[in-house]
Amino acid sequence: MERWGMFEAAVNGKKDGNPFLDYAITGTFASEHETVKVDGFYDGEGVYRVRFMPSYEGKYTYTIAGSAVEAPVMGEFEAVAPTAGNHGPVRVAGETLLAYADGTPHYSVGTTCYAWVNQSMDLQAQTLDTLSKSPFNKIRFCIFPKFYEFNRREPITYPFERGSGEGLDPALVEIQANRAYWPLEPVPEMDYGFDYTRPNVEHFRRFDLRIRQLMELGIEADIILMHPYDRWGMNEMSAAACDAYLKYMVARYGAFRNVWWSLANEYDIIPTKTAEDWERYGQLIAQNDPYHHLCSVHNCITYYDFSRPWVTHQSLQRTDFYKTTEYTDEFIEKYHKPAVWDEICYEGDISLGWGNITAQELVRRFWEAFLRGGHAGHGETYLSEDDILWWSHGGALKGESAPRIAFLKRILEQTPGRGLRKAEGIFDEVVGCAVDAPEDYRIHYLGICQPKYRMLILPEDGDYEVEIIDTWNMTITPAGVHRGATRIELPGNQYMAIRARRV
Amino acid sequence: MERWGMFEAAVNGKKDGNPFLDYAITGTFASEHETVKVDGFYDGEGVYRVRFMPSYEGKYTYTIAGSAVEAPVMGEFEAVAPTAGNHGPVRVAGETLLAYADGTPHYSVGTTCYAWVNQSMDLQAQTLDTLSKSPFNKIRFCIFPKFYEFNRREPITYPFERGSGEGLDPALVEIQANRAYWPLEPVPEMDYGFDYTRPNVEHFRRFDLRIRQLMELGIEADIILMHPYDRWGMNEMSAAACDAYLKYMVARYGAFRNVWWSLANEYDIIPTKTAEDWERYGQLIAQNDPYHHLCSVHNCITYYDFSRPWVTHQSLQRTDFYKTTEYTDEFIEKYHKPAVWDEICYEGDISLGWGNITAQELVRRFWEAFLRGGHAGHGETYLSEDDILWWSHGGALKGESAPRIAFLKRILEQTPGRGLRKAEGIFDEVVGCAVDAPEDYRIHYLGICQPKYRMLILPEDGDYEVEIIDTWNMTITPAGVHRGATRIELPGNQYMAIRARRV
Repeated sequence: MERWGMFEAAVNGKKDGNPFLDYAITGTFASEHETVKVDGFYDGEGVYRVRFMPSYEGKYTYTIAGSAVEAPVMGEFEAVAPTAGNHGPVRVAGETLLAYADGTPHYSVGTTCYAWVNQSMDLQAQTLDTLSKSPFNKIRFCIFPKFYEFNRREPITYPFERGSGEGLDPALVEIQANRAYWPLEPVPEMDYGFDYTRPNVEHFRRFDLRIRQLMELGIEADIILMHPYDRWGMNEMSAAACDAYLKYMVARYGAFRNVWWSLANEYDIIPTKTAEDWERYGQLIAQNDPYHHLCSVHNCITYYDFSRPWVTHQSLQRTDFYKTTEYTDEFIEKYHKPAVWDEICYEGDISLGWGNITAQELVRRFWEAFLRGGHAGHGETYLSEDDILWWSHGGALKGESAPRIAFLKRILEQTPGRGLRKAEGIFDEVVGCAVDAPEDYRIHYLGICQPKYRMLILPEDGDYEVEIIDTWNMTITPAGVHRGATRIELPGNQYMAIRARRV
Repeated sequence: MERWGMFEAAVNGKKDGNPFLDYAITGTFASEHETVKVDGFYDGEGVYRVRFMPSYEGKYTYTIAGSAVEAPVMGEFEAVAPTAGNHGPVRVAGETLLAYADGTPHYSVGTTCYAWVNQSMDLQAQTLDTLSKSPFNKIRFCIFPKFYEFNRREPITYPFERGSGEGLDPALVEIQANRAYWPLEPVPEMDYGFDYTRPNVEHFRRFDLRIRQLMELGIEADIILMHPYDRWGMNEMSAAACDAYLKYMVARYGAFRNVWWSLANEYDIIPTKTAEDWERYGQLIAQNDPYHHLCSVHNCITYYDFSRPWVTHQSLQRTDFYKTTEYTDEFIEKYHKPAVWDEICYEGDISLGWGNITAQELVRRFWEAFLRGGHAGHGETYLSEDDILWWSHGGALKGESAPRIAFLKRILEQTPGRGLRKAEGIFDEVVGCAVDAPEDYRIHYLGICQPKYRMLILPEDGDYEVEIIDTWNMTITPAGVHRGATRIELPGNQYMAIRARRV
C-alpha cells in the first residue's frame, strides 16, 4: 500500500433480501495521523467491499463491521511513500488554484468522453490507449447511459438491475442506428423495469476498472453522477433511491485519489430536479466523502451558485457564443474558487455550434483560460463513418488541438511557484503572470491578432529574457535579453505569445 | 443642373478687413416645392461662393445678398432629373435603416483614410483610383491634420492661415520621419501662428475637389470635423472660432449630396472639449444645414448619447476587444437609430490590437453587422516600407478583405425591400431577414463554425430555394428547393452562410 493508494477489503456477508438496502457495512481506519470511518458497499454474490485511501504514510489498523457481517473483521497495513506519478488527490490550493496533495501544482487539462465506459470493450481499450498518449489529465464521463444525437444505442450494461420488470426484448435493444440525427424521430416507449434499489454490479465493476486505469495514467476521473440525456427514466428515481445511489457512488469510488464529483452535466435542464434536490445531493456527498474530493455542478444555461460551501470549484460551460474563457478572471473574482471550463465548444464539424469550432479556436480558448488563472477542457466532435465521436464514445483523436494543448501544458508546468493569474495588460492582449513572482514571469498572449512587431514595456530595473512562443506551430524562439520599452519582431501570424522571464 | 446636384454661384465682393468674419452672404433658392436659405462663404481673392443642392426637379430662382456684396444678385436655373448613379443624399429610412433620397436602400460599406486629403497630390490620386475599384460607398476622413503613429509629417496645407504668427521654419516642417513608432519621442514645440478666424482657402479648395470626386464615384464623404490627434493646437480654438469653423464647413460642403457630418473621431479623448461643447456643435450643424445631412459623433471609450435629437445615426467604435458587431442589434434596439460601425479594428499587422486583425476576422465582423441590421466600415494597417498605410494615408490596398466585402455588398443589394434585420436563430448562428419579407428571405451566417452539414428548419407551408454562400471564397452554390426540417450538406469550412428564399 502506498500513501494515496486504494486499500480494499472484501468480506463475505449476508445476501438475503436486498443487501444494497437491508445491511450496512463500515470500515474504521486509524493511524498516528488520522482516524477515518468509511462506508463499504455491496458488490453482489454475498461480497461486501470496503475501500480506503490513506492520506499519510505509516501503519494503519482497521475494523470492518456492520449488520452485513456476523462479526467485525480487523487487520492492518503499512502505507509507504507514494511511487512516481502518485501526487495524491487534487485539492483547492491558495483559494483559486489547484494542486495535488503533495503540493505539485495541478493545471487541469481536461477532455470529455461522456459515454466511453458504456461503449464496447474494444473501444474502451482504444480510448485508454489514446488517453495514455494525450496531454489530458482529467476526463469527464457519465455513470448513466446517454441518449442524444449520435447516442441512440443502448449501453452495454445498465446501472440498475431490471429486477421486477418485464425484461427487455433483445430485438429492441438496437433501437435505431446512431445515424438518426437531430431532429430526433420518436423512439418507442419501453418498460425497462429497473429496480433503482439494486445497482447492477457488472456496470460498476467496469467503472472500477476504468477509474483505476485512469489513476494509473495520472488522469483525474471527473464523474458525472446525473445528466439530462435520459430515455430510461433514471431522472424519475425517488429522492430516497437517488440518495442511496449517491451514497453507493461515494462508498465505491471515494477511495480513488483521482476522483472528482460532478453532480450533473447541465443540471439546469433536468426538469425533474429542484434546487433543493441539488443542494441535498451536494451536502450528502460532502458529508459522506471523508476525502472531500473536488465537487461541483455543471450548467447548461444558468450557472450554479458556486458560493455554496460544498462546491469546491466552478465547473463552467460557456453561456455566450462569442466570449467563453475570456470571462475566466471575472468568475474567479466573483466566487474566489478555481474556474474549470468543462465545456467551451469542441473541435469538430457537426451541425451544432458547441461541436464545430476549429482546433485553432479551441486552443485559443485554452490559452485564454489558463493565462487568466483558470483551467480548460477539450472535446472533439468530428463526423465519422463509424459514428464514433470522441466527445461521447472515445476512440481515436482525429483533430489538431491535442498536440497544441500538450505544448501549452508543458509551458504551464514551467511556471515558477503555484500557478498563474491574470496580470494587467494592453486591451488587445491577455497577460498571465506567476502568482508567486508576478513581475518576474509573464506571458503576453496575442490571440487572433497578427502583428509583425510588438512594443513590450518591461520593467527598467532588471533584465528580461524574452521568448516568442508560436502556440500553433509549437515553437519557442529566443528574442534576446531586454529591459524597459522594447520592440519585439514577430512573424505576423495569429496565436503568438511573448514570454518574459527575469534573468 | 440635376436634382441633388451642386449649384454654385461665385460673386465678387468685399475683401477688406477679414472677409471671413466681417461680411455675410446668403442665397435664397425657391421653386414650386421648396424655398431654402443657405449661407455662402468667402473663398479668398474677393470671391464669395454660394452653393445649393436642389431637392426637387423644376425651375429654381435665386437671390444672393448680404453685406459682402453691393447689390443682390439674382438668377434662375432648371433642376432636371438625376443622371445614373445620383440617388440623392443618404437619409434615415424606417427608423433604423438607411436609404438614398430616391428610396434606393443604402448599405453603408465604409472605409477609413483619415488623412488622405493631406497627403501628396500623387498619393491622393492613387487613393481615388483605388476607391474607384473598391466596394466602398463611404469614406471617413479628417479636415484637420493628424499627428499619430505613422503620422508625424506635416500636412501639405493647414486649415488656417498663419496670419500673425512667426511663420514656419521650413527646416522644421519635416520634423521627423513617420518611422518614429510608439512610444513617441517628444517633438519640438513650435509656434505655427495660426489665425483661426481665417480658413486657408487652398486647404479647403482641395477638399472641394475630393468631395466632388467622391460624389462622382458614388462614395459618401464622412467628414470628421475634429479629432484628438493634434499637435497644432487646433483643439484649443476658442468657442467662437470653433463655431465659425463649423459654420464655414456647413456653408462650404453642405450642398454636396454625399456629405455626412462626423463631429469628431474619438470625441471622448479630446480633453479640451466639454459635453456642452459637443451639444452646441451638434445643434449648430443641425440648425445651419438646410439638408439635414446625416450627423453623428464617434467614440473611443464612451459612446455618445445617441438619443440626442440632432444625432441621426450611431457612429460606433467597438469597445470590447472580443465582441464588436455582435452588439449591433442591441444598439439598434437601444436607440432606434441606424447603427454604423465606423471602427471594428483594421486588417493589418501593426503592434496595436485595433490594427492587426486578419481579413477573415474583419469580413466576419462585416457579416455580423449587416445581418443584424447595421452597417460596417473597413480599414487597413499593413506595415509598409514607404510607411503608407491605407487607414490614414490611402494609396493602394494590400489586404484580402476588400473583394470579400464587395461580394457581401452584392448580396446585400439582392435583399428584397428596404433592408435587413436580425431574426431569431439558433445560438450558434446569426440570421438576417428582409425587414419587408422576414419569412421569405433569410440568411443564416455560421461565422467561425465549420459544420459539415446543417439542420435547417424551414417553414412547412412553402418551398424555399436554398443556396450555400461561401463568404470567403465568394461562391454561391444552389442546394435545392426544400420545406420543413432539412439537412443541408456543407463543405466543413469556416465563414459559410445559407440563404433561403421562398419560391
